[in-house]
Amino acid sequence: MAVYTEIDDEELDRLLAQYDIGAAVSCKGIAEGVENSNFLLQTEKGSYILTLYEKRVHEEDLPFFLNLLDHLAAAGFPCPTPIHGRDGRALRRAAGRPAAITSFLTGRSLRRPAPIHCGELGAALAELHIRAGDFAMRRENSLGLASWRPLLDSCAGQADSLKPGLNAFLQEEMDFLEEHWPRDLPSGIIHADMFPDNVFFLRDRLCGVIDFYFACNDFLLYDLAICLNAWCFETDNAFNITKARKLIRHYDRRRRLDDEEIAALPVLARGSAMRFLLTRLYDWLNRIEGALVQPKDPLEYYQRLLFHRNAASARAYGWGD
Amino acid sequence: MAVYTEIDDEELDRLLAQYDIGAAVSCKGIAEGVENSNFLLQTEKGSYILTLYEKRVHEEDLPFFLNLLDHLAAAGFPCPTPIHGRDGRALRRAAGRPAAITSFLTGRSLRRPAPIHCGELGAALAELHIRAGDFAMRRENSLGLASWRPLLDSCAGQADSLKPGLNAFLQEEMDFLEEHWPRDLPSGIIHADMFPDNVFFLRDRLCGVIDFYFACNDFLLYDLAICLNAWCFETDNAFNITKARKLIRHYDRRRRLDDEEIAALPVLARGSAMRFLLTRLYDWLNRIEGALVQPKDPLEYYQRLLFHRNAASARAYGWGD
Repeated sequence: MAVYTEIDDEELDRLLAQYDIGAAVSCKGIAEGVENSNFLLQTEKGSYILTLYEKRVHEEDLPFFLNLLDHLAAAGFPCPTPIHGRDGRALRRAAGRPAAITSFLTGRSLRRPAPIHCGELGAALAELHIRAGDFAMRRENSLGLASWRPLLDSCAGQADSLKPGLNAFLQEEMDFLEEHWPRDLPSGIIHADMFPDNVFFLRDRLCGVIDFYFACNDFLLYDLAICLNAWCFETDNAFNITKARKLIRHYDRRRRLDDEEIAALPVLARGSAMRFLLTRLYDWLNRIEGALVQPKDPLEYYQRLLFHRNAASARAYGWGD
Repeated sequence: MAVYTEIDDEELDRLLAQYDIGAAVSCKGIAEGVENSNFLLQTEKGSYILTLYEKRVHEEDLPFFLNLLDHLAAAGFPCPTPIHGRDGRALRRAAGRPAAITSFLTGRSLRRPAPIHCGELGAALAELHIRAGDFAMRRENSLGLASWRPLLDSCAGQADSLKPGLNAFLQEEMDFLEEHWPRDLPSGIIHADMFPDNVFFLRDRLCGVIDFYFACNDFLLYDLAICLNAWCFETDNAFNITKARKLIRHYDRRRRLDDEEIAALPVLARGSAMRFLLTRLYDWLNRIEGALVQPKDPLEYYQRLLFHRNAASARAYGWGD
């Protein structure tokens, strides 16, 4: 449900006149990407995605995101490729917003990924980390460990309205994470939002990764921990160790996990569950009654966090089986 | 902003298995059609629109709409063509909703149509009326004259909250329309919602008409009156007689208006302004605070209605110049 800004036909014509992709023959707002307005644009030359960046994406971060896509696409990673205008620029303005056109990726996101898809995901995540290894720009993780305490504080007074005792639970968890968070692990560019709706498949092969607008520098393992949370729990919140095993094994085949990473897996899984629990809790407590976009249930991640608290080691995720 | 029902990948595969259009390679919810959920579906064979019909469309009307599209497309009218499954049926169920797949039309709707587009529109509207002339099914206009009084009554108590005196104005207008509405004019199938967002152009040529979910039997001239309201007023509600002249002249070239129709144009223009004023007023008074889909301003049509009340004859719309 994500078309916040419309673009009219004259403005679209003016925008396309700056590129070499022909004139628009169709342009439809699509329900993809929660943060921005996206259009499936068909021109005389092919299909593209036009994105108008909305306020939740900081304009000063856009060169990082677009250069990263350029870098990854050039390295053969299946992500959208920014289309550059005749002046060489990929980022410009349209309809009063920062705007970019990228290549269109075929493929479909999966509602219910199977173990085979988790294996594909693990391999692609490792490829992403490897291929972004020589990307020159940096972006701090604005939703990393340091951001969670202030986010929790802003929700603290109301957390118990969602579930009695939730605030005390989260405070204790936060103390644990601050104390046990690793100081040093292999770091680099992470996607940081690799949920099933951001990954495309065709006939069980991963063929596209989209929505890099949370990408940043952090521990590489943190990206894998996010995927554990987002891909390896069933709708009843039961953990699926077969999926986790596939995910981790295929990741490790492409990029070998070191001993510190293996030891840190449970705490990073806790941390990434905490991150989504807190942002969902914040959105839940600050939701607008009657809005069409319903915030996601924060307690899903509470359940997942409970699982990770009981994980004694990476073995709980199928490692070493 | 119109994806209310999602369809998951297995369900989509099951649906497509009933057709001869290949497997889905991409399926994206699009912000088109306020009443239904629409997806731009790309298969191995081409592009299509998948529609899941939501509750505001009555299921028993769907055979009328789909057969009408079949009839018009076969007659060469540029509308979506329903795709029939191997069992011959165009209408089936998916994701718990009635569902149909139609051909994809290229083209772009115009935010600011120019006189040339109004001429194209007039010709296409006449073609639609002519080509639907031998369509065998009927559907009453559920938003025709007889529906306006009950709609007004349901808004009467609150109308003045939008504009003081509005209720008395509308009651008086309703009395006038009931007294002066023509009893007999050339009738047939009308589109009944031919707004700019439902009409596609490419390089100033009309190339597609979509969204037939208000189509019904009524006076043909009423469709032209709707277009006068929807296409020939500027954003400041100033009437653009150049656009109206083009619209009416190009319509009349394809289907000759008779004397009764020419005489009835002002009252039908009043009636069609009343219809959109009343449905918008109803949606406005029953809106949900904070909803993403903002109801349209009813008073736009109040302004247009004032114009039509001052129209002494069809001359006010450029007829006979």
